[in-house]
Amino acid sequence: MAGKKIRATDKHKPCVVNAGCDGYSLMGRIWVEGRAETFLGHGRVVLLERIKQYGSIAGAAKSLNMSYRHAWDLIASMNRQSKTPLVETAIGGRDGGGTKLTKKGERVFQSFKEFHRNFQLFLEGQSKILRFD
Amino acid sequence: MAGKKIRATDKHKPCVVNAGCDGYSLMGRIWVEGRAETFLGHGRVVLLERIKQYGSIAGAAKSLNMSYRHAWDLIASMNRQSKTPLVETAIGGRDGGGTKLTKKGERVFQSFKEFHRNFQLFLEGQSKILRFD
Repeated sequence: MAGKKIRATDKHKPCVVNAGCDGYSLMGRIWVEGRAETFLGHGRVVLLERIKQYGSIAGAAKSLNMSYRHAWDLIASMNRQSKTPLVETAIGGRDGGGTKLTKKGERVFQSFKEFHRNFQLFLEGQSKILRFD
Repeated sequence: MAGKKIRATDKHKPCVVNAGCDGYSLMGRIWVEGRAETFLGHGRVVLLERIKQYGSIAGAAKSLNMSYRHAWDLIASMNRQSKTPLVETAIGGRDGGGTKLTKKGERVFQSFKEFHRNFQLFLEGQSKILRFD
């Protein structure tokens, strides 16, 4: 490759999408870039999913074997690139605080999931029309 | 990201395809994986293109600022993963030897170019239907 060497083991990473084709695999990655940095990618979207599931940054980070600090940095990066935040933390209150996706966060999360599903379908479609054997 | 951090500067690399979307850019990379290693990717396909253009591995490698050894390794990797070679070198003869793509090499080269064009169209299509703002 022009830059980094892509190792065969990459095919087992969940961030890589693939479809079989003539004994080969059509592979790809997708992400969304903001003006100066990544806005959304597989790792960030899984983090959003875990925040929905665990209701806290600490729980989400722990479930991904990620440091709290790294999770917090990723969330801060997404929030500052968006007109309104994707993730919000309530302090105290009857529910004891907790972190959740805003309406905007949920919408962006679903858009990325759709992008990912469509990409999988794209690769499957391409595997039927392209010949590499 | 789960693995490597994708830097904003990646968007300027020719191996990354992108399409604008709500002030964000939908980004992606594609490649073709064999059973144990990469079969085709942007760098390999540009190398095939330069071999067509220069008629020699040395000329192709030089034009890409790549060592002869690295170019040779990439060609050997593609050839050994294919039932018949993609690149062949004639020794001597009236034309003084030279390296060129075989019929199979040309076909595989064109398939990847089509994959790449279709991926660009896919991203452009997605940028019209997905909302990230």
